[in-house]
Amino acid sequence: MFTMRIDQDIELQLFQLHHSERLFQLVDENRFYLRKWLPWVDAMNSAFQYHSIIPIWLKQFADNNGFNAGIVYKGELVGSIGLHNIDWHNRQTSIGYYLAESAQGHGIMTRTVQGVLNYIFYELGLNRAEIRCGEKNKKSRSIPERLGFAMEGKIREGEQLYGRFHDLIVYGMLAADWKET
Amino acid sequence: MFTMRIDQDIELQLFQLHHSERLFQLVDENRFYLRKWLPWVDAMNSAFQYHSIIPIWLKQFADNNGFNAGIVYKGELVGSIGLHNIDWHNRQTSIGYYLAESAQGHGIMTRTVQGVLNYIFYELGLNRAEIRCGEKNKKSRSIPERLGFAMEGKIREGEQLYGRFHDLIVYGMLAADWKET
Amino acid sequence: MFTMRIDQDIELQLFQLHHSERLFQLVDENRFYLRKWLPWVDAMNSAFQYHSIIPIWLKQFADNNGFNAGIVYKGELVGSIGLHNIDWHNRQTSIGYYLAESAQGHGIMTRTVQGVLNYIFYELGLNRAEIRCGEKNKKSRSIPERLGFAMEGKIREGEQLYGRFHDLIVYGMLAADWKET
Amino acid sequence: MFTMRIDQDIELQLFQLHHSERLFQLVDENRFYLRKWLPWVDAMNSAFQYHSIIPIWLKQFADNNGFNAGIVYKGELVGSIGLHNIDWHNRQTSIGYYLAESAQGHGIMTRTVQGVLNYIFYELGLNRAEIRCGEKNKKSRSIPERLGFAMEGKIREGEQLYGRFHDLIVYGMLAADWKET
Amino acid sequence: MFTMRIDQDIELQLFQLHHSERLFQLVDENRFYLRKWLPWVDAMNSAFQYHSIIPIWLKQFADNNGFNAGIVYKGELVGSIGLHNIDWHNRQTSIGYYLAESAQGHGIMTRTVQGVLNYIFYELGLNRAEIRCGEKNKKSRSIPERLGFAMEGKIREGEQLYGRFHDLIVYGMLAADWKET
Amino acid sequence: MFTMRIDQDIELQLFQLHHSERLFQLVDENRFYLRKWLPWVDAMNSAFQYHSIIPIWLKQFADNNGFNAGIVYKGELVGSIGLHNIDWHNRQTSIGYYLAESAQGHGIMTRTVQGVLNYIFYELGLNRAEIRCGEKNKKSRSIPERLGFAMEGKIREGEQLYGRFHDLIVYGMLAADWKET
Repeated sequence: MFTMRIDQDIELQLFQLHHSERLFQLVDENRFYLRKWLPWVDAMNSAFQYHSIIPIWLKQFADNNGFNAGIVYKGELVGSIGLHNIDWHNRQTSIGYYLAESAQGHGIMTRTVQGVLNYIFYELGLNRAEIRCGEKNKKSRSIPERLGFAMEGKIREGEQLYGRFHDLIVYGMLAADWKET
Repeated sequence: MFTMRIDQDIELQLFQLHHSERLFQLVDENRFYLRKWLPWVDAMNSAFQYHSIIPIWLKQFADNNGFNAGIVYKGELVGSIGLHNIDWHNRQTSIGYYLAESAQGHGIMTRTVQGVLNYIFYELGLNRAEIRCGEKNKKSRSIPERLGFAMEGKIREGEQLYGRFHDLIVYGMLAADWKET
Repeated sequence: MFTMRIDQDIELQLFQLHHSERLFQLVDENRFYLRKWLPWVDAMNSAFQYHSIIPIWLKQFADNNGFNAGIVYKGELVGSIGLHNIDWHNRQTSIGYYLAESAQGHGIMTRTVQGVLNYIFYELGLNRAEIRCGEKNKKSRSIPERLGFAMEGKIREGEQLYGRFHDLIVYGMLAADWKET
Repeated sequence: MFTMRIDQDIELQLFQLHHSERLFQLVDENRFYLRKWLPWVDAMNSAFQYHSIIPIWLKQFADNNGFNAGIVYKGELVGSIGLHNIDWHNRQTSIGYYLAESAQGHGIMTRTVQGVLNYIFYELGLNRAEIRCGEKNKKSRSIPERLGFAMEGKIREGEQLYGRFHDLIVYGMLAADWKET
Repeated sequence: MFTMRIDQDIELQLFQLHHSERLFQLVDENRFYLRKWLPWVDAMNSAFQYHSIIPIWLKQFADNNGFNAGIVYKGELVGSIGLHNIDWHNRQTSIGYYLAESAQGHGIMTRTVQGVLNYIFYELGLNRAEIRCGEKNKKSRSIPERLGFAMEGKIREGEQLYGRFHDLIVYGMLAADWKET
Repeated sequence: MFTMRIDQDIELQLFQLHHSERLFQLVDENRFYLRKWLPWVDAMNSAFQYHSIIPIWLKQFADNNGFNAGIVYKGELVGSIGLHNIDWHNRQTSIGYYLAESAQGHGIMTRTVQGVLNYIFYELGLNRAEIRCGEKNKKSRSIPERLGFAMEGKIREGEQLYGRFHDLIVYGMLAADWKET
């Protein structure tokens, strides 16, 4: 399996086809918890769907346009993180993530995003990383805030969830402001 | 020719292959004026390049993912406007435009964006339109400001121009706030 | 919407995805009338089918290979006209059309084909336009005859309708013979 | 090699990549003779070009949309014959051919087209075959005339050769009129 | 039909779409006999499936990457033979075949493979041909052995049939060792 | 970076676009050493070529059809290993590899192949792994021999190197015979 080591406890596993079952199980077990902010959760109703989705993610990776990986904490799949796409001309990308309810409270996502920022700035050599969170999604917003992202704006009605639009907060981190910890 | 009528003086012409010459001429004559904010201008050095670009624009249109059109004022091609892409799930799109130096001062772009907003909200039925301008691009920023867009944020170092990053101002207009004039 | 103005009453609307409902309604209401000469009418049984067909038409347009447009008479969709494809080497194309039964008798199709011929000869710069009609399709044949097309031949059993072959009359118009009216 | 036997002297060889050299040689040796009616002859200046063209022909064959084959007379490649495409709905196709100057006068093309008509009507089960010839191309026109095709029309300026348009004669043969000889 | 003549009794017919019925009938009638060594037999349950498969075979042929053809003995389809793919850099290919039970005992397959080897070595100019047989498939193994192939190895568990792995014998023939008969 | 940990000293790095320079440098420095058994070495003359090749490798990975990775020993790229493709029906794959001259003698490749076999049998769940080596390539052959592969055959003239064919030894390892060390 191809992994990106974050720290002693956490590694990212690039999703391959044989992760379909485990990934579906993660989403299925956290269905109620995740669906509030992730509109696609309701549509996932069998591991088989990931047999179509994972190849799309891997082709995105093959096109040098980001990745989708599982967050593995002490050997267990607890979440997912990815770069939605990469704007090579303007040297920026956007990060998305979610974490199982049971894995909350260990600082897993903060450490993971930290590791991914190192990958973004030091390995890919990009200049800017963006995170967009629903305005009322406190948990999600706490990650960029804890890591020192600047709040750059509020996209009014930037996303639709279950037929209602809500506002998105845009957070940005620049290479110049990032120091590896 | 397929056109979108804006008002008595202005119409948009969906770019087809046979516009290549006139479009290149427009860019070529305004090269010095346009290149300040449009990084691709330097790369355009023959009408022939538009023979590859226009089919890509038309395929984008065929995919129901926006359009690129010439702005024709009193019969003369004076600029370009387009929808970069359409996010149908979140029902939003982003508008880009430029105008020849000699056509400045007649309110052409304001009226054109007004017409395009009518198309976006009344014909396509979208919920949100976005315009992004370089922070110091006064002329470009005056359009959304004049039309009542809200300034929603500042994307730091959001764009690269000639090796330097500069900040982008994000303007948003919601369907609920737009009234046809 | 992108349109081609024919005269004060008539405009052509380049079909986009959001025309699916109205186009299906037109076909559905004229089903009995149209099916006599159009073999595909029976196969159209939901607006949804046009969600696959319209992108194909638009890709044809994107490939500079003709168009398919709605005929709008005094604001109402009453028919369709298109260029089946364009032979750029031999600089010729072929026109197809149909009109709702209720819109017959106003000269709509004659004026429309006239406008399309102007587009073919003056804007696209082609040399020859062709119309093929079923030999016994009097209404359809009256259009090229009224507009001065030459009858160039009879393709025996050139088309199959409901399991029977019938003869097609080929009409041609040359650029040199066409004078804008 | 895959061949279609016409008679004791003549067989058709489905063109494969390894025919490139011999096919180019045929065209090259008859360049002056063939170019009068075949506009693409001037553009063929190396056997290597057939490395791109033959796969296209074979894909057309794979799509059940006609074929391109060499005419081999007493073991020597002397010409080419093909079905340009097949209209399966209307069950018709169109035949094109050319023959080396030195192979004229043996009835080769008449016998070959005869064999191809058997393939069209008896093996493919089509209803109609068409041949189009330049009006002044006596040699080419003699083939359908000898075989009893009906002259169905004259397409005015139907083809461009070296910047000038000329008229095409359309010949048609119906399954019902064809009797194997 | 395009054929490769093997000898007076046997010809190969390049499979085209209109062979679907006859090919399915062959497989269907020999279902019990063929399924022992051909794992795909159980999955073939209608002639219609060949409407998808034959175009794939023909595209492989169009890509100069082998062929699939029917073996016709005294006018009757009795089997199939093909080149799985062609390794042009190393100039080798691999042969696969099967024969109806009722056609066994006439030397049909030996003569056919002989003819195909002539095509491989003399027409395609390859250097090596391979045949792989299940170790216990006596009938299949007798073909390369009778024709003088060398037994080059045994691929342990090289193929899966109905959930069990079995060993494959690799036979090879080199151009230098082949003499046309 | 996405890696597969082999042991304390060795990790595999899935090749991404930004490895192009380092990979070319490895090949370029070992050009004379590697070209003896790798026919493609002479064709690699700039890092830029890997900008086309690495996306193809990643697409292969995205198609669940193997991978290509760098062998990193104590932080330095010293070689490459990959699965050429995966036959999922027969549950087998084939391994290829090379190592810089300066990295010979540390057991790097033996440990690496060992790790890859664990991935093949335990993570992918395949049943058989194959390695093919030139008969006279002692160094390459020592790897499967040391790891207990069975020698299953000799493919005569199985590969072409610089215009001459040479024999390939096929080694096979079955899941049942492999015990993780």
